[in-house]
Amino acid sequence: MVSIRVAAAQINTTVGDIRGNVDLINKYINHAIDMHADIVAFPELTVPGYPPEDLVWRRDYIKANQDALKEIAKTSKNILSIIGFISSENGSLYNSAAGLFNGKRIFTYNKINLPNYGVFDEKRYFESGSEYVVIKYLETILGVNICEDLWKNPGPSETQASRGAQLIININSSPYEMGKNQKRIDLLTSMSKRNKCFALYVNQVGGQDELVFDGGNMLSGPNGELIASTSTFEENLLFADIDIGEVVKSRSDSTSKTNGNGNTKPFIIPQKIVSIEKEYANQALKEYADQNQKTRLRPTTVIKTNKLENIYKALILGTRDYVYKTGFSQVFIGVSGGIDSALVAVIAMDAIGPQNVVAVSMPSRYSSQSSITDAEILCKKIGVRLITLSIERAHSAFESILSDTFKDTESGSTEENIQSRIRGSLIMALANKFNCLVLTTGNKSEMATGYATLYGDMAGAFGVIKDVPKTLVYELAEHRNSIGPGAPIPDNILKKEPSAELKPNQKDSDTLPPYNQLDRIIDYYVEQRMEPNTIVQTELKKSDGVTRETIDKIVKLIDLNEYKRRQSPPGIKITGLSFGRDRRLPLATKW
Amino acid sequence: MVSIRVAAAQINTTVGDIRGNVDLINKYINHAIDMHADIVAFPELTVPGYPPEDLVWRRDYIKANQDALKEIAKTSKNILSIIGFISSENGSLYNSAAGLFNGKRIFTYNKINLPNYGVFDEKRYFESGSEYVVIKYLETILGVNICEDLWKNPGPSETQASRGAQLIININSSPYEMGKNQKRIDLLTSMSKRNKCFALYVNQVGGQDELVFDGGNMLSGPNGELIASTSTFEENLLFADIDIGEVVKSRSDSTSKTNGNGNTKPFIIPQKIVSIEKEYANQALKEYADQNQKTRLRPTTVIKTNKLENIYKALILGTRDYVYKTGFSQVFIGVSGGIDSALVAVIAMDAIGPQNVVAVSMPSRYSSQSSITDAEILCKKIGVRLITLSIERAHSAFESILSDTFKDTESGSTEENIQSRIRGSLIMALANKFNCLVLTTGNKSEMATGYATLYGDMAGAFGVIKDVPKTLVYELAEHRNSIGPGAPIPDNILKKEPSAELKPNQKDSDTLPPYNQLDRIIDYYVEQRMEPNTIVQTELKKSDGVTRETIDKIVKLIDLNEYKRRQSPPGIKITGLSFGRDRRLPLATKW
Repeated sequence: MVSIRVAAAQINTTVGDIRGNVDLINKYINHAIDMHADIVAFPELTVPGYPPEDLVWRRDYIKANQDALKEIAKTSKNILSIIGFISSENGSLYNSAAGLFNGKRIFTYNKINLPNYGVFDEKRYFESGSEYVVIKYLETILGVNICEDLWKNPGPSETQASRGAQLIININSSPYEMGKNQKRIDLLTSMSKRNKCFALYVNQVGGQDELVFDGGNMLSGPNGELIASTSTFEENLLFADIDIGEVVKSRSDSTSKTNGNGNTKPFIIPQKIVSIEKEYANQALKEYADQNQKTRLRPTTVIKTNKLENIYKALILGTRDYVYKTGFSQVFIGVSGGIDSALVAVIAMDAIGPQNVVAVSMPSRYSSQSSITDAEILCKKIGVRLITLSIERAHSAFESILSDTFKDTESGSTEENIQSRIRGSLIMALANKFNCLVLTTGNKSEMATGYATLYGDMAGAFGVIKDVPKTLVYELAEHRNSIGPGAPIPDNILKKEPSAELKPNQKDSDTLPPYNQLDRIIDYYVEQRMEPNTIVQTELKKSDGVTRETIDKIVKLIDLNEYKRRQSPPGIKITGLSFGRDRRLPLATKW
Repeated sequence: MVSIRVAAAQINTTVGDIRGNVDLINKYINHAIDMHADIVAFPELTVPGYPPEDLVWRRDYIKANQDALKEIAKTSKNILSIIGFISSENGSLYNSAAGLFNGKRIFTYNKINLPNYGVFDEKRYFESGSEYVVIKYLETILGVNICEDLWKNPGPSETQASRGAQLIININSSPYEMGKNQKRIDLLTSMSKRNKCFALYVNQVGGQDELVFDGGNMLSGPNGELIASTSTFEENLLFADIDIGEVVKSRSDSTSKTNGNGNTKPFIIPQKIVSIEKEYANQALKEYADQNQKTRLRPTTVIKTNKLENIYKALILGTRDYVYKTGFSQVFIGVSGGIDSALVAVIAMDAIGPQNVVAVSMPSRYSSQSSITDAEILCKKIGVRLITLSIERAHSAFESILSDTFKDTESGSTEENIQSRIRGSLIMALANKFNCLVLTTGNKSEMATGYATLYGDMAGAFGVIKDVPKTLVYELAEHRNSIGPGAPIPDNILKKEPSAELKPNQKDSDTLPPYNQLDRIIDYYVEQRMEPNTIVQTELKKSDGVTRETIDKIVKLIDLNEYKRRQSPPGIKITGLSFGRDRRLPLATKW
């Protein structure tokens, strides 16, 4: 028997765009009403957007976010809308969830567990809540909590279930990273199993600066089964009909099984329960019952995803949203004929359409003909306009300006950087003139080792593959070629040896260890925070282990190049630890 | 009667330089021993350096910082050394103070109040302590606490005093900002008055990335009197002889006065008190008594400072330490003949000596002869080498490369940025070639409004006056001219109208409102976080009030240029709210 129909809105809000966010919320509430849902839940901080950072100290912003609730409450006709917003009380701010119903705010839950690690700074802004709100709605007892609250065991869900909650709704703004979705599924299903309840997971979707939210809304049941999950990286509305009787049965079974041994806490309905007024509830219930035969819903199928597909989608969504949400529509990309810029150009094409992408080839006296040709072939294949600007005249001008000062010095990285900076200045000039963004093409292996020129190839608004190690760049290129449409990245680009082409016959491997080794050491040192000595010991056990000398060299490069990363453009986080707010290190340090 | 001689070490540590920090600590302990001090106290996180940021997650770093205590304990012969370090317990880390005496760690206090606002992220790293340690040492009862603990009332000092503490030592790594020292004096004196105790304030000194620690160690007495304070912005060791009898008298007076009304809490010595073994204590006391007649110390005079002097010293120290602590010794500075670069060149000269500063003049077709001459006069006056590199050849080369693409477009900021980026590339080439740092010369008014070119004049390692508004730039220049030696900044530079000289007859005032108005609005909007509507109302009341139109324009410029600041080099914080970690805002936002 169906007791309640729930909907989970996976929507793409924008930080600070309260008007736009409210319109989006209202649209999805109306959609849920059309589908006769009893409850519709939205992501964490739906109204103000997440993460709002220091905007939370703007009183006008906080007021606007609170005023917006009144409007959303009016839209919530005979439907309980769970909305994320910033509440304030006695000078403190809370990361909160409001329950809105027929024009009124029925309850507010304040997030209890505030993450203050990785990219999160929530203790900078919010106080922890202290009340474990439980609500009786129609015939169902609900608990609502927020994001990090799910990651604690025992956490608010346990307290709410012990107070009778049969359905726990956890609203999130949980950013994507590789492998995280499985962690969330495990958390949700084990929580619902532990508490013998239904559990609805609601996440936002969309890019916000360095973060991409992947959605992945889902529902799990009292036996820990994953009942439904939605597609990721796009907006949608998950619906499911829940039979609360299953919770009642599961709990009474378990009480009788554990009869007398006291292991299972009783599920008690507390006296102080927020209860939604019967006349409304009954009316909704009546309407619902009227419609129910017609609209009986099967829960959405559980969606399976794979690693490369997810990463690729994250890069598309992160790029698209950064461009659009900063108010731009077109981008310039410097294409060298190498794999990094080819991948970025294809991602940009997939994100905002080939007509909005302009590739810029800036050959020098050291550029090989094959690089120039490869860039041309790429652009033709993906239908992107290509501008070619030879840097020779500027290159000779710089040499001539500096010839006196540099005489008797040996040519080296200074001379290479000059070429890269001429390119940076040219592409920025294009961007300034035509009011477009520049997408940078450096990968994580380069950002880690500083194999990039500050103000040169690092010049730009947004680093699309900044958190993608070089080996993964190849995998993603091959993945994109395999899924179609087309196989946009020319074979020659996939196969040639990487080179910066800043001096004759230069190869990345002249300076850097092979990328498979380099990426492994970067993963150990940066993402796993392994110490150099531990890395040496780990590598010793491997047949293709990297020598101590190479490990020391890589670690030193990573440490020394902190200053470059500090001035690098933001880019999309896809790993467990990206360069950016995830990793905060001093510059003037001797460690 | 003197009961105890205390010393407060105001030292300049470096984050991560544990070996160097320990050597410095040992040197100062020995100095304190030579002066027959009974206690010597050091700043917060003395051993690991502050702020260590994500280095705290390096196990080798934490271990080294803890191992170092053993060595310092051995140096602490018959002297109680209070040392800041990172302690660990059950997987949690604490910001702690150790009491070291004759080879042993006698006690550990874990910081209870962790700042997680402004530039501080301590809740990212540390757990809060929970024990209010009180120590009996010789005839004195001591309480030790850390930095933020002093800013709470009631705070740990109140609890420690109520448990008998007669001397409270508060160790700090409190960064400089304008006017903060007076706040600290007020906090310390009111705390000691409240608790009828002596209070010793110990702070570090030195630059660490964007922060400058100004020291300012001081001692206050049980009547709230400031007994001693030291000079700021340099290392030193404050000594004072304390008569604990004053505390005993003050407390018994107050008890008799408030007899019966119950307003004054009794000062009770708890049973669980850390007590330093008598044989050591007595020996120290004996030696001390032996020496006392000879070395009777007057407390250091209370040092008075003034605003401009402090800011100027902060800029010198911040610059010197950034250069040295990143392992460099020389700098390049682009000099335009304007006031900003002149001030930065003089600060650099004062910080690291004229022989380590090279000025670079990079005139274009739009540079006035007077600007070129003014830069020459400045460099001659301050004894700094000047390199002149005309950008004309590169300028024409860029024009020629872009002529096709830019045909039929109007000349504007794109063309101005090109000149600035050529200069940025040239000075970076010099820095790369000769392994020096580039100091940037942009002021806070420019950083706020984006009146600067990303990768152009913003290119460099460190922004010396990044947090100095333009009006204050003038004040500092005049201050420096007035204090000598010399009046290094030519009159002509002080008097001429500000211009970027990126097009013919350009003046800052073509684009920006007058700097006195601009700086006021920036102060309201950025530092005071005032909302635009409130600013409009505030300005309406002024005779020289700024119009709504201008206010809206400035606010919009500040908001729009967040992306430039995100990629700007770090610079010295001198105000209550600097651009940097102090102010974290989203880029893709519609607020």
